[in-house]
Formats: sequence, structure tokens, C-alpha cells
Amino acid sequence: MEFHHHGYVRTDPRIEPAAGIGLNRPEELPDEVDVLIVGAGPAGIITAAQLAQFPNVVTRIVERRSHRLEVGQADGIQARSVETFQAFGFAGRLIDEAYQLTDTEFWTPDPENPRHIVRSSTTPDTLIGVSEFPQLIVNQTRVADYLAEFARNSPARGEVDYGYEFEGLEVEDSGEYPVAVTLRRSSGPDEGAARVVRAKYVVGADGARSRVRASIGGSLQGDQADHAWGVMDVLAVTDFPDVRRKSVIQSGDGGNILVIPREGNFLVRFYVDLGEVPEDDGGAVRATGIEQIIARANTILRPFTLDVKDVSWWSVYEVAHRLTDRFDDADSHPGARRAPRVFLAGDACHTHSAKAGQGMNVSLQDGWNLAWKLGQVLSGHAPEALLPTYSDERRVIAKNLIDFDKEWSTLMAMRPEDFATPGELEDFYIATAEFPAGFMTQYQESILTAGSEHQGLATGFPLGKRFKSAPAMRVSDAVRAHLGHHHRADGRYRIYAFADADGSELNAWADWMLNGGDSPLRLFTPPGGDDDARFDVKLVAQQDYHDVDLLEVSPLFFPRLGPFRLKSYEKVWAAIPGEDIFEERGISRDGAIVVVRPDHYVANILPLTSRGELADFFRPLLNEV
Amino acid sequence: MEFHHHGYVRTDPRIEPAAGIGLNRPEELPDEVDVLIVGAGPAGIITAAQLAQFPNVVTRIVERRSHRLEVGQADGIQARSVETFQAFGFAGRLIDEAYQLTDTEFWTPDPENPRHIVRSSTTPDTLIGVSEFPQLIVNQTRVADYLAEFARNSPARGEVDYGYEFEGLEVEDSGEYPVAVTLRRSSGPDEGAARVVRAKYVVGADGARSRVRASIGGSLQGDQADHAWGVMDVLAVTDFPDVRRKSVIQSGDGGNILVIPREGNFLVRFYVDLGEVPEDDGGAVRATGIEQIIARANTILRPFTLDVKDVSWWSVYEVAHRLTDRFDDADSHPGARRAPRVFLAGDACHTHSAKAGQGMNVSLQDGWNLAWKLGQVLSGHAPEALLPTYSDERRVIAKNLIDFDKEWSTLMAMRPEDFATPGELEDFYIATAEFPAGFMTQYQESILTAGSEHQGLATGFPLGKRFKSAPAMRVSDAVRAHLGHHHRADGRYRIYAFADADGSELNAWADWMLNGGDSPLRLFTPPGGDDDARFDVKLVAQQDYHDVDLLEVSPLFFPRLGPFRLKSYEKVWAAIPGEDIFEERGISRDGAIVVVRPDHYVANILPLTSRGELADFFRPLLNEV
Repeated sequence: MEFHHHGYVRTDPRIEPAAGIGLNRPEELPDEVDVLIVGAGPAGIITAAQLAQFPNVVTRIVERRSHRLEVGQADGIQARSVETFQAFGFAGRLIDEAYQLTDTEFWTPDPENPRHIVRSSTTPDTLIGVSEFPQLIVNQTRVADYLAEFARNSPARGEVDYGYEFEGLEVEDSGEYPVAVTLRRSSGPDEGAARVVRAKYVVGADGARSRVRASIGGSLQGDQADHAWGVMDVLAVTDFPDVRRKSVIQSGDGGNILVIPREGNFLVRFYVDLGEVPEDDGGAVRATGIEQIIARANTILRPFTLDVKDVSWWSVYEVAHRLTDRFDDADSHPGARRAPRVFLAGDACHTHSAKAGQGMNVSLQDGWNLAWKLGQVLSGHAPEALLPTYSDERRVIAKNLIDFDKEWSTLMAMRPEDFATPGELEDFYIATAEFPAGFMTQYQESILTAGSEHQGLATGFPLGKRFKSAPAMRVSDAVRAHLGHHHRADGRYRIYAFADADGSELNAWADWMLNGGDSPLRLFTPPGGDDDARFDVKLVAQQDYHDVDLLEVSPLFFPRLGPFRLKSYEKVWAAIPGEDIFEERGISRDGAIVVVRPDHYVANILPLTSRGELADFFRPLLNEV
Repeated sequence: MEFHHHGYVRTDPRIEPAAGIGLNRPEELPDEVDVLIVGAGPAGIITAAQLAQFPNVVTRIVERRSHRLEVGQADGIQARSVETFQAFGFAGRLIDEAYQLTDTEFWTPDPENPRHIVRSSTTPDTLIGVSEFPQLIVNQTRVADYLAEFARNSPARGEVDYGYEFEGLEVEDSGEYPVAVTLRRSSGPDEGAARVVRAKYVVGADGARSRVRASIGGSLQGDQADHAWGVMDVLAVTDFPDVRRKSVIQSGDGGNILVIPREGNFLVRFYVDLGEVPEDDGGAVRATGIEQIIARANTILRPFTLDVKDVSWWSVYEVAHRLTDRFDDADSHPGARRAPRVFLAGDACHTHSAKAGQGMNVSLQDGWNLAWKLGQVLSGHAPEALLPTYSDERRVIAKNLIDFDKEWSTLMAMRPEDFATPGELEDFYIATAEFPAGFMTQYQESILTAGSEHQGLATGFPLGKRFKSAPAMRVSDAVRAHLGHHHRADGRYRIYAFADADGSELNAWADWMLNGGDSPLRLFTPPGGDDDARFDVKLVAQQDYHDVDLLEVSPLFFPRLGPFRLKSYEKVWAAIPGEDIFEERGISRDGAIVVVRPDHYVANILPLTSRGELADFFRPLLNEV
């Protein structure tokens, strides 16, 4: 954490100095805004949090509820999301209060007494080495709380505007604020009153029944529900020994349960199989009562019993998989595709079963992907051409999600005798574990993702996948830290210069970065501000840190910051013997340049000897100064 | 973190449900209180934080200032203090924002050019294995902020009463509230107004010039100052390469500097030697200006330069070492020693040089030691005879502190040519490193610390020293965690039952704990409440967790909690192959009972076969129910 460089900070350093519109942010929703976000769920609130880092972007987020969400239904947090929360400053706090997924237990009918279940196998849930962070279970309200705090502490001082319901929008062909949004007060003294807010861009994060989606002519498309589940969050006394471990239970009578322990050491969620829904059911299954779900759970759990003391939430649902036909409004108009003005994110784009714990996670990445792009465009750093990449990138991810979840939820609902082998469910679970952990996202070649020509220089940083962090030693203060944990959600690109063995190519590259006419630093960094305003450029040396002499390191890696033009000392790193990042991430001993985008995905890999290629890569992404 | 067991928690689980006086805490300072704490520095605020965990104890803390402290001078945080902060729930957050001490650099005159300094050696500052936590540098205001937050979130809802100055007190011989304290409003609309608050106990945490100390006839006694230092917190540009590492610099002209990098990556503290102070100086040295200190620093640092851009704080001080002649008022009255009513803590008891970073840390342990004892006595859990142990225990620690600091600050002020060997300063630094890290405290045998008869059963938990944490695996959810990180500052004793190899002795002991007539559980735990209300009893098995069958574990280790009498699942642990706590802490394979007091010190070690000894140990410490 860097602070004090603008003068002594007398309070919590997580509260950044207000700047731009944060200096005098109006409490009332203004008539004109840069970005209007509809819905304060995970997709909406992360969009607001990231945009609050751009001090001159007027972002407002409206929410139909009159107050903070108190109980939400999503609770599965992938390791990829925890990495994301690290960038938003709250991974540690969330881990402290969450349930941590480790082993998964598989229970099947006892061969000697098929009326009873027995533990058949144990599988580690978290793939060793996939991430340094665990997978968690914690209610979505806490994620939203922390993201809202980040927004509030950011320079633009983001806050949610509660009590506004979205009614409709019109996109006009011209004007600075081409989107006219009609809102209606859903609470407060002027409840029912309508008003129009004009926006440059609108983000529809308003859930599965999204009215923003409808307003751009979109719809969710997908299959019919045919299998029903009861889900309940309960406080209970039981002799089932794995009640604090994720457990997949198949009973002899064909009933299934998924046990998901919850945060706080007592609460537990049960997904209880209610069986196939006849086509002519007509919604009758939804009348299943909580007593029936508890009774069914007790049957499936035999010989164990479940004495439910308190039900904090329960529901009956039928599995459905649906995907939006559009992520933005670029195709919504007759004639040529035009620049998008309205975007959809989160459940407005994809709905599916809850049991793989995917929904909130994909929604968060939707929002983050979109938000930094909007922030850069509206701040004048990037051209508008960046915005269509949102739809291009996230549409593929949503499709993969639906496909995966269909397969998983079908297997989860099968009877034991229908499997080809007794271990089929477990085998699928293990084979696909990287997907639910959130690490299968790989963006394809585009203006944001370079071709794989130089992938060999850094094989452990696959292009288009998220930067997989590794520890290194900060030379200035001899502190070991994960490089990736310094990727704040600040909307900047990271450029890692992995040095060659003797540092000669590194020094030549650093000279060019500082002085070359086609250096991206010179082309895209506005003069007069912080030297690292657009690019966070870090050196990673191959040597042990004792052998890195700071007096010999290029001034490129001591950028001057703040009103006193102080040197930053956090850019120079060294490999750690025994956990050498060059070994662990397959970095060439000739060095390499690795470019990471603001949402952590690996954007480009180049040799240290390259020059113009780096500027060329950024030319479609950043405006020259 | 255990929560939800009283019903679903809809906000931050760190905010505990209000209880007792926290349900309707009066905003105004009442006329009668159980404990009145004077001073909201580190010693005072930790006392208030711990007492706020006792819902029925009326604690108030008054502070002369009208508001939160914004800039304090203390900044050294021992690893022992970070362990303490873990118990108060904020170790992770403080580490995130603090400077982390790792290497210490020693600079001495360049033999080839004594006008210049050169790096002579590097020493790791944190002793590997002494603690899993680092040593930190961060301003004391942040420590106070977090402790105040803990108080606010605790059941009794502690808050500081600002704007009250302590004027004096009288201790009467009888009455429920025998201490009459006169306070004066130091700010606010009624500034200057005096009032009397009656208390059962008063804690003087009002600093080196303590008026509480004076009011019980105490004084600080010690040596004269004879060496002056300039200290400054600055933002600067320098080519001195170790400006982000703790550095001990001795220059050729006899001048010394201690460099202490500060939190936030830019700020740095310099202690600059201003030399011997002549006896007839008459305070003239204190007129030294900041320009002189900066100039002196530049001379000592040659060939490097220090270009100071901003000074956030500076001072000139003369080293003095003083110790109070009393820690409570038990000896302050003619005739027999009587039960103490007034206690002193922190700087009111001991002052010394700042450079070893000791003051705040010892003050925190003063306050914590006292607070849980006051809380237990005032809640009716413990007899009043517990209270004199505060003075008995902390007086020795303070004396050790002064002795250590005298030696360290003398060495720090010596000229290079006066050392017996060139490495003498560094050798002393290494040889004594456990002291400034905070781990040399070892309480002597007393009602709170058993004799060493059974020390051999757990050689890695020395009696009277702090419980040195080690990782283990929680069986219920297969989560690896440090046992010590579950020691919340909740005023309870911990009892660890390290199992024998086959568990037979363990099971017999558990049966006795549950059913024996002389079991401490039955003698001291009030019926009807949580089973673990007084004792947090945990099992640690020798086996890998896969081999611990929860269905076979005694119900002692599944205590029932809350209105629903839910089972707690966090009491059963297993050794981890490769980092086996039995190996790492020298636990007998026949098992052992280890008792830990509420402030983490090891109180007793007994064989699993013992019975009455455990109850006998607690008899003078707890009231029977």
C-alpha cells in the first residue's frame, strides 16, 4: 500500500484522497451522468467500485430496493474471485469470515444396506497450485458490502442511489448524453414519481428478469426446466459427520443431496433433490413445503438424522439454463452495427443452476471487464473502440458457463445405477475442477490479447488467461510478496520486465522506455503527473535480492510520484531461491516483457529486445497524449 | 469466526450482538462506573477493548483530548503485539498497511575513506521461527483505531469519552464505588466544569506525567538524561540505498543515525545523534532546529545526500530511563497492604528511549494483563485475589525493559573506536533480538503460573511464556489454521488436550471433564449457558485428520452453544504430517493438558492422567458456580 506521498495521512490509508467529482459529489442523482448502472448486485456494484477509481467519471448506480441487501442467495466464491477481491483490498477480510472449501466428500449407497449411505471417497476441492487463494462460501451481501466500501473510499466517492426502479430507456443517435433513462422512485417520500436521467452509457445489471435487456430488445434463451430442487439454509443438530464439509450424497432410492457448509461454523445449505418434474406439473412442485424438504433430506441421509432448529432461508426451484442473445445494444438497431451505449452484465446475461457456485463469480468478471474499459474511455485515456471488446470477450465465457453447468447439473441429478461407472460423478468433478475455480477463462486474440508468437518466453503466463501470481522479493525493503497482490483495481496496465541474466538487455530496454521516441511511456503518459499514471512498470531480477544493487538500477524503476516527486521503491523485485518465479512461470533466462491488463489478464509477451511492438500494441488501446 | 448460532447475522459478523450494558449504553458518562480508565493511549484503549467483552461491566475511558489522536509518536510493533492484535481481530489489516521489518543494515566508516560510510553487514531482523508474525512499523494511532473499533463492536459497546481531564482521586475504605474521581471538562460547551465520578476501580493510563500516579503518591524514578537525539519523520529524496530498510549508521566523526522506514512506502524516520549533553546545558540542546538535524543527517550519511521535501513531525529529546515505584495503590496506604483499587499502566509506569521500539508494546501487555482480570472479577467469575497479580507480574517486566533499553541506547550512542570489537553493536543486537521482539516475558510461579513439575510433557510451551502458536488441521472442515489464531480476546481460559497415541487416556480424561464431580467444567461453568463459556477446551490428535473419526470423539469436544444448543465443530484438531505440532512443540506422545490464560500465557501443564490438580489450579482463580 503506497500512501503519505501527498503528505501525512491521518486516518485509515484505505480511504484515498477525494479527487475530481469526489470532491463535491452531489447527494441527489444528477440529471446527466457518464455511466448509469442499474442494479446493485455483484455485477453492478463491482462496476461501480472500479469506476469510482476514475475521479472524473460521473458514475451512479441505482437500485430498486430502499436499502442495502441483507440476505442474498449466492454464496459460492471461486479462487479467481478472491484474487479479484485482493485487487479491491478485501480478500483477507473475506477469507477470515468465510467458510473455506477444502475436501469434498462423496457418499453413495451402502452396498451391504442400500437404504443407508456410506462415505465412498474424499477429493480435495481446491486444486493445489491453481491459486494461492482458497475457494470460499459466504453470502453475496458481504461481497457487496466490501465492494461498496471500496467505491466509497475511492477518489470519486461512489455510493448507491437506493429506491429507483428502471422503467425504460431510449438511445438517441447523437448528443453528449444519448441515452435517456426513465426511472421511478420505488421508495421514499416521492415514491412513484418518475424522472429521466440522461447518460453516456448504461449498464444493465438488473438480474435475470432484466428490464434493461428488454429495453434493447434482448431476451434470455435456453432450455426448459425439468428437475426440481429444494434448497434450505439451516441451523441444525445432526450426527452426519461431514456436515462441515462439502458433500455430494447419492442415496439408494435415487435421491441426491449437495451439502454446502456456510460461513460462521454453524449454518449449512442443503440442496435436496425433489426429482423429475412432469411436463404437466404446472408449477405444482413449487408448492413443496419446508417440512417436506426436511423429511426428504432425512430419508436421503439415513442412517443419520437432521434435526433442523432454525431455517434462515429456503426455496424450491427448477433448473433452467438460459443465455442472453446480446451483451450490448450494438446489434439492436436496424442497419450497421454501431458503437454500444447499453451493456448487460451478470444474471441479465446468463442464468443456470446454483449448485456449481458459478453465478456471482461470472457476474463479477463481467462487471470488472466492462468497468475499466468504460473508465478509460470516459477519462479520455482510451478510444471508444475498446468498448465492443466487452461483448466479444464475455459472450464466449457465458456460453462456456452454461455448457459446463448443464453437464454438471445433469450428472448431479442422475441415479447411481444410471452412471457408466460408479466413480463417474467424482471423475467429472475432478477432471473439470479448474472450471468452477474460475481459471478456464482464456480470451482469444484481439486488440487486447496478442498472438502467441512469444508465448515461449513466459510459458507460465498463458496469453488471454489471468496472470497467475507468484512470490518475489521486493528489493528495497526485503519483503516477500505475491506480485499479483500488488495489482490494485486502479485501471492501470502492468508491464513486467523480467531481466536477462546480466541485465544488459534489461538496461537497454529501460533506456528506451525512458527516452525512446516510440516508448509507450512517452506516447501515452501525460507529463506532469505521476510517472506511473498509466503503466505500473516493474523489474524482476533473476538474482537473489542481496545481489541486486539499487544504485545500479535504471531510474525507470524509481518513478517519481506526488507533489514532492518522491521515488517509488516498490518496483524492483528479485527472484527467491527455492521458489524462483523464473522457474515457476517458465520465464526465459534471456528475459521477457509481460503486459497485464487492468483486470489481470495477460495481454502480451515480448522479448526484451523488442521496441516498437510494445507501442504498436498499445496504439489501439490508449490515446496518445 | 463463529456466528449465526443465535440466528442469521445480516451484517458484518465482527459486530457482535450487544448484550448487558451494551443494550442501552448511556451516551453521557454516568456517575458510577465499574472501571474508569484515564487516557486513551495504547495501554488505556486495549484495557477498554478487552473489558468491552464483559457485557455486564460498566467501563468508561476518559481522554483529555477532544477527539481521536491523529498523529502519535510510537510506531514500533513487536511480533508479540501482532499476535495480540490477532486476538483482537485486526492483525491482518494492520500488517497490510504497515512497514514490515526484515533485514537490518549496519553501516560503518569506510576504512579507506573514514569521511564516508559503507555497508558493513546485514542482519535478518525477525528471528526465524520466533513467531509466525512479522515485526511492524506503523503509527500508534492506527493501533488505537483498531482497538477502539473492537471495543465498539464488542457486546458492551465501548466508546471513548473525549474531553475529560483527570484532576484527582480519593480512595475510601468502604462502599461499592470506593474511588471518587474528580474530572474537568477539557473541551465542549461546558469546558472547565468539574464533576465527580465514582468507580470500583481506576486505571491510570495517562502517560509519563501521570496525574493518577501522583494521586496515589507514586513517582517515576531513574537516571538523568545525558545524550540528545533529533528525531524526524520526513518525505525525502535520497540516494542512500537502504532508506527502505532499518539501518544503523555509525559515521567516521562519531555521529550515529538510526533509520526506521515507515508505513506507506515513502515516509521515513531518522533518529539523529546530537551528542553528549553537557551537565550545564540547561535544556539548550532542545533548541536545536530541524534544519540543524537535517544538516547533521547529511554529514553522517556522506557520500549520500538527503533532500528533505516535507517534515511531518520532528522533535529533540534526551534519553532518560525511569520506572514507577508502584503499579497499584495497594502499598500507598499506611498499615497493611490492602486490595488494590487504582492501577497504573503504560508510560505512567516506565519511560525510556524510543529507539528499540518497545514502549507501545509493553504498554499494550500491561493493559491486557490487567483488563481480563478486572473483567473476570467484576463479572463475578473470579475472586478479587486475582488483582494483585497485575503488579506482581508487570513490575518485573518493566524493570527488565529499562535494563535492556539502557544497554541498547548506550551502545547506540557509542563511537566506533570505543567498541571492544567492530561487530559489538551488531553482536548485541543479534544476541538480544528475542527481547525487542517481545518474547522474553516469562511470568514466575504464582497462582496464575504453575510450577515446572510437568514441563517435560510439553517442552515447547514454557510455563509463564506466551503460548507459541503452531498450525494444526481442524478435522470438521479440513482447514489448516494456527491454533493460537483462534485465541480471541474473549477473557476465557483455553485448555488443550493433546491426545495420547491410541486416545484411551484422552477419552478417560474427557469423561471425567464431562462427569467428574471435581471437573472444572462442572465446578466453574454456569449451567444453562454456552458449554464453553469459561473454558475453550480443544482436542489435538496425533493422527492425520483423515484418521480421526468424528463419530468416535467425546461430546466434550462438541460443546452446545446458543439458543438452539448447536454443536460447535471447531474444537477437534489433528497434527499435520510434516509440521506435526507434537514434534514442533515437544508434546509427549502420552499426551498432555496445556492451560493457557486469557492473555495467551501458558499457565499450567498436566498429564492426561491428572484429575484433581486441574480443579485445584483453578480454585484460586475462579469462583465456583
